[in-house]
Order: sequence, then structure tokens, then C-alpha cells
Amino acid sequence: MSLEKPLILVVNDDGINAPGIKALIAVAKEFGEVVVVAPDKPQSGMGHAITLDSTLHINKIDIDHVRAYSCSGTPVDCVKIAVNRLLSRKPNLVVSGINHGSNSSINVIYSGTMSAALEGALEKIPSIGFSLLNHSIDADFSAAKHYAQKIIAHVLDNDFSKEMCLNVNIPNLSKDLIAGVKVCRQAKGNWEEEYDERTDPMGRIYYWLTGKFVIEDNGEDTDEWALKNNYVSIVPVQPDITDYDLSENIKTLENV
Amino acid sequence: MSLEKPLILVVNDDGINAPGIKALIAVAKEFGEVVVVAPDKPQSGMGHAITLDSTLHINKIDIDHVRAYSCSGTPVDCVKIAVNRLLSRKPNLVVSGINHGSNSSINVIYSGTMSAALEGALEKIPSIGFSLLNHSIDADFSAAKHYAQKIIAHVLDNDFSKEMCLNVNIPNLSKDLIAGVKVCRQAKGNWEEEYDERTDPMGRIYYWLTGKFVIEDNGEDTDEWALKNNYVSIVPVQPDITDYDLSENIKTLENV
Repeated sequence: MSLEKPLILVVNDDGINAPGIKALIAVAKEFGEVVVVAPDKPQSGMGHAITLDSTLHINKIDIDHVRAYSCSGTPVDCVKIAVNRLLSRKPNLVVSGINHGSNSSINVIYSGTMSAALEGALEKIPSIGFSLLNHSIDADFSAAKHYAQKIIAHVLDNDFSKEMCLNVNIPNLSKDLIAGVKVCRQAKGNWEEEYDERTDPMGRIYYWLTGKFVIEDNGEDTDEWALKNNYVSIVPVQPDITDYDLSENIKTLENV
Repeated sequence: MSLEKPLILVVNDDGINAPGIKALIAVAKEFGEVVVVAPDKPQSGMGHAITLDSTLHINKIDIDHVRAYSCSGTPVDCVKIAVNRLLSRKPNLVVSGINHGSNSSINVIYSGTMSAALEGALEKIPSIGFSLLNHSIDADFSAAKHYAQKIIAHVLDNDFSKEMCLNVNIPNLSKDLIAGVKVCRQAKGNWEEEYDERTDPMGRIYYWLTGKFVIEDNGEDTDEWALKNNYVSIVPVQPDITDYDLSENIKTLENV
């Protein structure tokens, strides 16, 4: 760790008033100067969305004596405007969350929490997204805070890579029931959607997205396996989605 | 190609009234039955966003005698509700676009066009996103249509993989100036953002996102190289974002 006090940017996708971000701010404060930039409303499932067609609005507020800004945009907008406009120096670390609900397996690509963390890594700032496997507003964040503290300390002490991004998921268990930490790969899985069809008071049909998550991958090296076996899962992620395995097979497309 | 007439789902992110989707519908009609499900308004930069916290509304319309639905949701919502609710059988192919503007390099992760295509592959339907390197509403789609036709024909004739997803970018050139087709990897690049600060009539500050794209990667196997050299670029993409290279380095996190 350098002698300068680390600057830590805290973001999330559940919005600036979510209990999870307060838990993460409390942890981050132990390590240095903290600035919070978070959406002014819940932005779950926003993936890597950015605001292109409308304006962004920022309000400066205070959360537990920490400098904070609420932002009208998406989680990724929060990181971009923090790094490029609101902060006077580059953060040493971006932490995102603590999300209310899992971001394991394929959920990572829908997740505003993890997209904000990945955006931090794209800005060449080591970044970590934290998610607790409990959607409730009343979730107990004490075990998640314990592991967030340990992981942040280890990342600040080890200069792994400026482009490092970690997807950390924490089982919904008390600290003494958690088996430890596993570095994993993203399990292969998918959502089988169902659409709940309803009729509004004007007689028009509308839909709510529902569905169930299906795991297609029982590998013991996956985040899903780790979480099912009471481990905290850490999946390092990166933004190159090229399908290198398929590249050779489709070379014939060069002859069309 | 099977004897049954292929069912092709057409989606986009520029909205159901964009010229680019009309160009793609015209091409898709040559190959079988076409159904269009597209956002009712522009949804550029929506990434893999889905609608979780609000309702979805669908309107059945007709575009050039093709069955079409406008959807109040994101590009990914369009694919999910098409496959799981609106269509009576699984499509043989999802095509997305033709996008007004490039989705090469890192743009792929911000792109609604490509996220919709990737969602098709997650539904185990071969999927292709097409983008033309011209943002204009008056863009000339004739070369893009020519290559879309060739690529769709080749994909339908070759059963590459149900989970195949192709990111096709087409230079903004007439057909005779295009050098051919290259299968590539995603170039490493990033946006350097700037925020244009303005004051509204009430005296409040707001921001517009602007920025410039910076390529950090001159590999001749990249999409950026292909496009700069007048080739159509095809990058196969997939949804596992695990950073396998970093996994070993961060194993010490298991001891925190």
C-alpha cells in the first residue's frame, strides 16, 4: 500500500439509499478516503447500460459523514462520471454493492453491480463487486462486511493488476457457518423466463418478467458449486467476450 | 437447411422505426418466416439491461406485411418475451440490427444490438448482430444488406452451434470498395469520457456524456484492424467473462 491514503469509490445498483451500500461504505472507510456515487433509484438488471440519449443530473449529499453524490443515470454512468468529472484524482479502488441478491453464474452479465465494477477495471482501476445471496431489504450484512474487509485489505496490499475485476458472492449465512473463500470460474447457467400476463384497469394486457434459474454446469471449480458448499466465491472477470473456441470453425464465413 | 421454413426473429436497439431494422427485415424475408420484436423507442447503449422493476407492454403492428411487435422494454427484453411468450415455436435464427453505428471492440458490451444477439445465443438460438459504421438516419444500407444476406445464408446452411453469436460490423463503404470478410477477435480499446457541463433554465447543472474512443491494440487479427482495412469484421462472442489468466495470480485470496 502506498503512503498516500487510498481513495476508494463506492458505487452500487440498488440505489444510494440501499442498506447494502451503507454496509460497504462502513467497510471502505477503514481503508482511506471514500467517495460514493450511486444511482438515485434502484437500477437492478441494468447490465452495462449507459445514458446516451438523455442528460445526467448529480446531487451532492452526505452519507455518514462521507462525500456522496446521487446520480440520475445507470451504475456504469456513476463510475464514468465519478472518474472523469467528480473526483480530483484517480481512485485506487472501486467497490460496488453490497448487492441485495446473487450475481453468480450468468447473472453477472445482467448485473448493474458487476457492470459498474467492470467499468472501473476498464478505467484501469482495480475493482470489486460484492453481492449477498439475500434479496431482502432486511438482509444481515455482517458476514458480507467481514469478507469484504478481508478481500479489500488483500487487494490493496497486493498490486495484482490495474485491470483486475472481482465478482464476489457471499452465502446468506452467519460468519461462523461460511466455509472459506474459493477463486472460481463463472458457472454455465441460464434463466428460463416466464411472463406473468395481467390486465390493467383499462383492459390492456401487460407482463411481468419472472423465471427460474437453471444451472447446466456442476463443475467443482464454479461459483455455483462454491456457494452451494457455503464458500464465498470470487470470479475474476474481464471484458473480452470473443468466442476463441468458435473462431476456427467459422472461418468459412471469410469466403461468402 | 431443414425442410421446414426457418423462423427468423428480428430485433434491434435503435427502435422499431429505425431504417436499419427495415433493411434487416427485407433481407430476413428471403429466408423464411419473419417475426419482428423491437423496442418502441431508441435503446442504444442499453447493454444487457432487462426490465425487472416495471411492467412490459407489447403492441402488435405490421411492417411491410411482416408480423411485428413493439415492446416497451430493452433489446434483451424483446428477445426474452419473443422466445418465451410471443412465438409459437423456437426461432431458427435471431438477427439484430442493422445498427446505426459501430459495435466493434469494447462497444460490444455497451451495445443493445449485441446484447440482444447474445441473449438469443443464451436461449440456444444461433444469433447474429449486424452494425453499419454510420450513425446517420440516412445511412446507405445496401452493402450491409448484401453481406447480411451472404452471412445469414451461410449460417443457416451450416449448423455451427446453437450457442453461436456473431458480432458483424460493416464498413461505411459501397459494396465494391469492401475488401471481403475477416473472422476476428475483439480489439482491446476503451472510451475516454468527457462530460459536457451545462446549466438548465432553472440554474441547475446537468451533463451530457461525450468522449473519444481509444484503441490500445493494433493486432491484425482484431475487428478494428479489419474495419480500418475495409473488411467486414465478424467476431464470435460468448457470455463467459471469467478472467482465466488472472485466476492463478489471485489464489492467495483463498487464505484471507
